[in-house]
Amino acid sequence: MKANLVLLTDFGNKEHFVAAMKGIAISVNQNISVFDITHEIEPYNIWEASLVLANALPFWPPLTIFVAVVDPGVGTYRRSLAVKLSDGNIIICPDNGILTFVLEKYDNPEIRIIDEKVHMRPGAEDYYTFHGRDLYVYIGARIATGMVQFNETGSLHTADITLLDYNRATIADSNKIEGTIVKVEQPFGNLVTDITAGLFGKLTEQKEIGDLNVRIKHDNHLVYNDKIPFVKSFGYAAGSGALAYIDSSGMIGIAINSGNFAKEYNILCGNTWKITISID
Amino acid sequence: MKANLVLLTDFGNKEHFVAAMKGIAISVNQNISVFDITHEIEPYNIWEASLVLANALPFWPPLTIFVAVVDPGVGTYRRSLAVKLSDGNIIICPDNGILTFVLEKYDNPEIRIIDEKVHMRPGAEDYYTFHGRDLYVYIGARIATGMVQFNETGSLHTADITLLDYNRATIADSNKIEGTIVKVEQPFGNLVTDITAGLFGKLTEQKEIGDLNVRIKHDNHLVYNDKIPFVKSFGYAAGSGALAYIDSSGMIGIAINSGNFAKEYNILCGNTWKITISID
Amino acid sequence: MKANLVLLTDFGNKEHFVAAMKGIAISVNQNISVFDITHEIEPYNIWEASLVLANALPFWPPLTIFVAVVDPGVGTYRRSLAVKLSDGNIIICPDNGILTFVLEKYDNPEIRIIDEKVHMRPGAEDYYTFHGRDLYVYIGARIATGMVQFNETGSLHTADITLLDYNRATIADSNKIEGTIVKVEQPFGNLVTDITAGLFGKLTEQKEIGDLNVRIKHDNHLVYNDKIPFVKSFGYAAGSGALAYIDSSGMIGIAINSGNFAKEYNILCGNTWKITISID
Repeated sequence: MKANLVLLTDFGNKEHFVAAMKGIAISVNQNISVFDITHEIEPYNIWEASLVLANALPFWPPLTIFVAVVDPGVGTYRRSLAVKLSDGNIIICPDNGILTFVLEKYDNPEIRIIDEKVHMRPGAEDYYTFHGRDLYVYIGARIATGMVQFNETGSLHTADITLLDYNRATIADSNKIEGTIVKVEQPFGNLVTDITAGLFGKLTEQKEIGDLNVRIKHDNHLVYNDKIPFVKSFGYAAGSGALAYIDSSGMIGIAINSGNFAKEYNILCGNTWKITISID
Repeated sequence: MKANLVLLTDFGNKEHFVAAMKGIAISVNQNISVFDITHEIEPYNIWEASLVLANALPFWPPLTIFVAVVDPGVGTYRRSLAVKLSDGNIIICPDNGILTFVLEKYDNPEIRIIDEKVHMRPGAEDYYTFHGRDLYVYIGARIATGMVQFNETGSLHTADITLLDYNRATIADSNKIEGTIVKVEQPFGNLVTDITAGLFGKLTEQKEIGDLNVRIKHDNHLVYNDKIPFVKSFGYAAGSGALAYIDSSGMIGIAINSGNFAKEYNILCGNTWKITISID
Repeated sequence: MKANLVLLTDFGNKEHFVAAMKGIAISVNQNISVFDITHEIEPYNIWEASLVLANALPFWPPLTIFVAVVDPGVGTYRRSLAVKLSDGNIIICPDNGILTFVLEKYDNPEIRIIDEKVHMRPGAEDYYTFHGRDLYVYIGARIATGMVQFNETGSLHTADITLLDYNRATIADSNKIEGTIVKVEQPFGNLVTDITAGLFGKLTEQKEIGDLNVRIKHDNHLVYNDKIPFVKSFGYAAGSGALAYIDSSGMIGIAINSGNFAKEYNILCGNTWKITISID
């Protein structure tokens, strides 16, 4: 059986950090296949890491282990987690909110607090700043190859874990949805909202979808307000105007065909960026 | 037998897109080896994608499948192609010109129009914006592992496919070659021309090569005009001056040793950037 | 037995160069596992390449072959080296100083001058600008798979190899260490010094470590002078001030928790950037 280890960090691709992690992984077992989601998460940006992780997870086969390390608190007493999702795949990560958007997608995860005394890499006793190498990828590789069982990672955790401050999109009244711009997708500059196709379907149930009224606010300051077409895909938009669509993760997206919506309208993402969609 | 799947996209390395494609590939078969050419093609730049693909192709072993996705028209009725080259390797891509520079190198490709109804990934019925994941890498992985034979990808196509507007370099008179600057190689800033070593040889047949007269025009505006040495490799240039050489793909290149020619002289690439080389 | 080939270059991730190298590697043997340290070394920056290589090496298992190509002199008569380290792992690289920081860590390497006439890739006779593809990765893959034995790479070399101009950190008097800022780690902006934990231990032997006096000079011009806490890890620093710590390679580092020290104080690295650490 081959084992897959999939990495996500904010370590960048210019230094030795990721290579050190991969070296440790295949030192555990030469037959592990190591993959990357990205190492270009904005430094310390847990929100961004959480979203990219949540969007990548559903497409991997059973028995994949994810190691997600964006970890400003490394070396302090923040907890380290081993989390088994409902599909059986496992995430190794710090308890700092990085699971926020993952747990929007997966119910009833089994959460364990990693026993660092047991699972720290031998030889790493004098290092406190690189748990990605010395703890997370090491235990991840050992789980992937069956050297550590999931229930041996540490004690079961039934209390709350750390979550980012975030409230999911809702139907505000019969013809309006209020959500958050959770991501600006690079390099295209498409906006990703937290409005699911399912929620959007409730809004449009009785109506034929044509144009949508889209309003975007930053800290209650209106930065965009227009009526734009709802299309199946970018190529269907006439010319270079804005358009709304259901993106490849099943969320409402806002884009400009062959353009960059976020740059055009100076839009960023996060809790302070709200979007309202309505139909006349 | 191991199967190689080699990816080229403009999706960048910051998002979940490439990881989703790789997850689908190894979900098809755990034993596929997945490689990257690059995911940093300038967004929507089919010309650049075509050149990088054409330059990477010759160095891969038999039975390699390439999946090339720079696809502004995703989700519309543009065709999707499966192309078998004369060396037996296969490219999966949209029919949008991305094969332009590939077909400068490989004669008589066997081209099939992918039957999207048959080969779309099950579960992808509601998504229209990510054929890289839902069609191209999925069928690529299935071809790589023998689950789909090449002649089962779709009907044979004998008419023209989409090509970019491009005319190859020619000998203009007995001592002058006119070509195009097809690429600025990053991060070095070397110019890549479409003047092959073979064509250059016809120019120089009767002469000993010393200095070359190099003229570069943008839209008929002269931007560079100098006499520079023709050398075997960068290190042979005296000091930090410009030099011409045969690059590692067999094309005439223009560079500055340990410098950046394109940045120094503000030179870009494409159809409007012409180069003339002559010998006194 | 699986063979690991680990690449480090300044070729970037935008072009076909790295893909061509990987294609050659698996053309030699389909079962080679190819990994990357980085391809984003600053173009021609041998110092940076040397440090990243030295930092990545210790974490890889036995029988790993490293191919390190930052090579401004490609195609000229600079020598090419095959170097067996004391742990048995092998580096293939040009003789241009790229081993400087590696040899700070590994004593008694066995060094051979690669016989280019014997080991150049067949078919590469007409190319002089891409030894990464035509010589280094080709011989590296052949060593990795046992097709070439280390002692068949070329003649034993006992004279000096090329080293960068660099002097290691020293204790200047009983309470002061003078060293060099050898690296600014991206994307975090942490300073890496060449002051080892061992050397630092000699300074602090008789004392309890509290705050350190840190002075940074560029060409004898003072650019930073402050008293900062010495902590186990970033998260222990109060607020967003500067801190000193032992980094994950066992060197003294200077950083700002969740900030960017190098950007904050306009600090770069190299021979002209000196750091002095003392205890009151």
